[in-house]
Amino acid sequence: MRALRPMIPLRMVSKRLISKTVNLRVPISTNPAMKFPCLDRLEQISEELKQRNGERAELPDSVESGKRGNEDPVYGNVKSGFELFHSYEPLFLDYCGVLPNFQIAYETWGKLNEDKSNAILIHTGLSASSHAHSSPLNKNPGWWEDFIGPNNKALDTNKWFLICTNVLGGCYGSTGPSSLDPADNLPYATRFPMLSVHDIIRAQNRLIKEKFGISKLYCSLGSSLGGMQSLCYGQLFPNEVQRVVSVSGCARSHPTSIAMRHAQRQVLMADPNWNRGFYYNTKEFPNRIPPHVGLKLSREIATISYRSGPEWESRFGSERIDDEKSPVLCSDFLIESYLDHQGQKFALEYDANSMLYLSKAMDLFDLSQSNLNRSAMKREHARMLFEANKLNTTCEEILQPPKRKKSRTTSEDEVRKDLVEGMKSLRDLNVLIIGVKSDALMPHWQQRGIYEVLGGDNNHKAIHIELQESQSLFGHDTFLLDQENVGGNIGKFLCNDL
Amino acid sequence: MRALRPMIPLRMVSKRLISKTVNLRVPISTNPAMKFPCLDRLEQISEELKQRNGERAELPDSVESGKRGNEDPVYGNVKSGFELFHSYEPLFLDYCGVLPNFQIAYETWGKLNEDKSNAILIHTGLSASSHAHSSPLNKNPGWWEDFIGPNNKALDTNKWFLICTNVLGGCYGSTGPSSLDPADNLPYATRFPMLSVHDIIRAQNRLIKEKFGISKLYCSLGSSLGGMQSLCYGQLFPNEVQRVVSVSGCARSHPTSIAMRHAQRQVLMADPNWNRGFYYNTKEFPNRIPPHVGLKLSREIATISYRSGPEWESRFGSERIDDEKSPVLCSDFLIESYLDHQGQKFALEYDANSMLYLSKAMDLFDLSQSNLNRSAMKREHARMLFEANKLNTTCEEILQPPKRKKSRTTSEDEVRKDLVEGMKSLRDLNVLIIGVKSDALMPHWQQRGIYEVLGGDNNHKAIHIELQESQSLFGHDTFLLDQENVGGNIGKFLCNDL
Repeated sequence: MRALRPMIPLRMVSKRLISKTVNLRVPISTNPAMKFPCLDRLEQISEELKQRNGERAELPDSVESGKRGNEDPVYGNVKSGFELFHSYEPLFLDYCGVLPNFQIAYETWGKLNEDKSNAILIHTGLSASSHAHSSPLNKNPGWWEDFIGPNNKALDTNKWFLICTNVLGGCYGSTGPSSLDPADNLPYATRFPMLSVHDIIRAQNRLIKEKFGISKLYCSLGSSLGGMQSLCYGQLFPNEVQRVVSVSGCARSHPTSIAMRHAQRQVLMADPNWNRGFYYNTKEFPNRIPPHVGLKLSREIATISYRSGPEWESRFGSERIDDEKSPVLCSDFLIESYLDHQGQKFALEYDANSMLYLSKAMDLFDLSQSNLNRSAMKREHARMLFEANKLNTTCEEILQPPKRKKSRTTSEDEVRKDLVEGMKSLRDLNVLIIGVKSDALMPHWQQRGIYEVLGGDNNHKAIHIELQESQSLFGHDTFLLDQENVGGNIGKFLCNDL
Repeated sequence: MRALRPMIPLRMVSKRLISKTVNLRVPISTNPAMKFPCLDRLEQISEELKQRNGERAELPDSVESGKRGNEDPVYGNVKSGFELFHSYEPLFLDYCGVLPNFQIAYETWGKLNEDKSNAILIHTGLSASSHAHSSPLNKNPGWWEDFIGPNNKALDTNKWFLICTNVLGGCYGSTGPSSLDPADNLPYATRFPMLSVHDIIRAQNRLIKEKFGISKLYCSLGSSLGGMQSLCYGQLFPNEVQRVVSVSGCARSHPTSIAMRHAQRQVLMADPNWNRGFYYNTKEFPNRIPPHVGLKLSREIATISYRSGPEWESRFGSERIDDEKSPVLCSDFLIESYLDHQGQKFALEYDANSMLYLSKAMDLFDLSQSNLNRSAMKREHARMLFEANKLNTTCEEILQPPKRKKSRTTSEDEVRKDLVEGMKSLRDLNVLIIGVKSDALMPHWQQRGIYEVLGGDNNHKAIHIELQESQSLFGHDTFLLDQENVGGNIGKFLCNDL
């Protein structure tokens, strides 16, 4: 758009010159109006999603959970090729909810030996599927493709029987917020009950015992959310696991990590398409689209916490995509273009509600004794309500009134003692804790903290490894990338070689 | 809402039981639907803002910039009591834009001495007004209230004549995106030209010379964005300033800081009320409301980068507001409630577009020689266009074609040399650099970097102080809070006592 004649007030210009688009594009201005190709693109994606809804208006209300991935082109970029384990006994939950039944998607590699003593359960991070490695059923490379395989890989499939699940609450085949509530056969959405990491582990434990008949795992192993789960398995079932590996995990979430995830959730929830969780298409509401903008932004924030400044410095520096162009408010620096790409990739692949529930479960993660006691009470309460057929009832109604506070009421020392008590069952197991110096999300001192709570140098069964910045600059994501220092050390630990 | 009878599919339930609200509240579900009081509250604020628009429908199109604060109840919580400096000569800008005229809001404390040798220019952070200290015109405490005053304060008003401005691009009286474009007398919005920190400084320099007739400042002083400005003043006008103090600043923005600000901007821009910057009420569009939700979220993300984990650990720990209540996706932990409060406070006080432009100016900050050269060329180009009466024309049209790239093209060593060259004028000045170990946004090694580029220990005019974690856990915000280590050292430096 060229200027007509500058300095003439708008009201003197013929009305027909004013663009009719939503945004007022005034033809006369001192400087040109900024352009926003990034917003144009997001609007275009929304438009495409709406059109796809039209094409599949015949989609039935009840899509069988395990298969919905194949029928849902929106957020359901679900990996196929997993097996399903169904549990028809209700699962009572740590925050007073209940799942009347549930399913867990899982994959396996290697062969379970005769006495069932070589099974390793791999726990995933927040957004991963069960597809840790390629398989005959799904030939795509898995998220730990290079860590798993016969012979020289960290997890030797000639030796071990590896099991990986999609976590409860996820969207890659396991029961989660996008699954149907048996009460009305409509998606749970935010009627899904709040989950804890402990709930996820109790569901996995059923798979291990009921499906495979394994009474004792050789190892429970995971990183990030998986590192939390891994410790949790040892805490809850110390007699059903020999070894525990926890990489970039913690015993209790730190306020900075909670703050980072809080921002991700609030940003997603502010997307009008999120619609308080009810964005799934149903017969009654066939025109909803998922909150892809909110999920993209949320993933960009997450990505900031997954990598490290020094890595970005060496990869992108502070360089712009093009120094000669006028700066723009859409992506302009190399780092911005990277974040934008990471967010966009995720936005149409993952289920937004799964992100919310699992992110919250990470915030709530706490291996302390008082947390165990509190949640035991609430699970019992949920069982009572369920058996009395009082569904759809909040627990609060018969618990004590809220105590509001503005600053912490327990000292760091009290918290530590509470953790020592809660984690005492883990002290009898062989435990490997790996921390990464460049990790900003679950900082290295949190892993050192786990080691100390387990007895530190006085506990000969616990091993603590801290990767220095000279070893890895990949921050929290190191566990996905560092075959030598993460994979290598895990491989040795499994063979009692550390 | 109580359950009727569980397990009955929805379609068998009388339709009148289905809530008519936007969100489907299904009366039967296994667990109760989650509640979202935080979203209810935001919707209520939007409603209130819309109603206020109705009440002031008579607001004229042209509100005189300097006074608009008193008439705009929405984002215009502008501090009154400042003076205005008007410049009627066009200001040509580093990214090829132009301001045909502009105004700067400023306040002063103390008395300018006869030879005009005791003036100190205080530069502010991103969101501050000129109100650094209370005054007869505005008795509210300023943002550096305890650092300024007669006798024992760091900045002694018996000795110094202190000047503080609202930055160009801001919304507290100085010309910014909410000001009127003289071309059509409508708010600039995102027709406002992209600014650099150098542009902000060139505008301030006019105030210093044309308003006060000061040929040489005693000191240019600031923190955060102010710390950038402070160095910039010394770089551009080495003969017009004796001393420079830069606290928690840098010579060039780091990719992690850019990433954090990128997230803030994208989140704000995704708010539908932002409307590509055109959210100001005008006669033609009297029903717009500002993007208060996006600005709130954006400020929450900013707050994460302003403080430090250890401070939050000691203040909030990982405690929930109430352990007995079921967890919720709205604020639930103490840290979340803190972030929520910080965001909400800011959301209706500050102008969203000012945030975008100033945040971007921080990303673009670069004291290198090549940046100086490039922008000199663009300013010249802007002058040419302006004099040929070619407004509303982008500069790109006659510059070289874009060079797209995915990773950095200059080495860290080349960048360093470029900075040494660009900052050589600063080596003749007395410079105090203060860094804070707990600062995550502008990490302490960036301030050490400034010191080294200035010659380090070989430059007897440069002083570098690094505050350890035992001295301050307040992170980037230390400069607002630490009278002893920040204020104290500045006071001594001004008296040549360090």
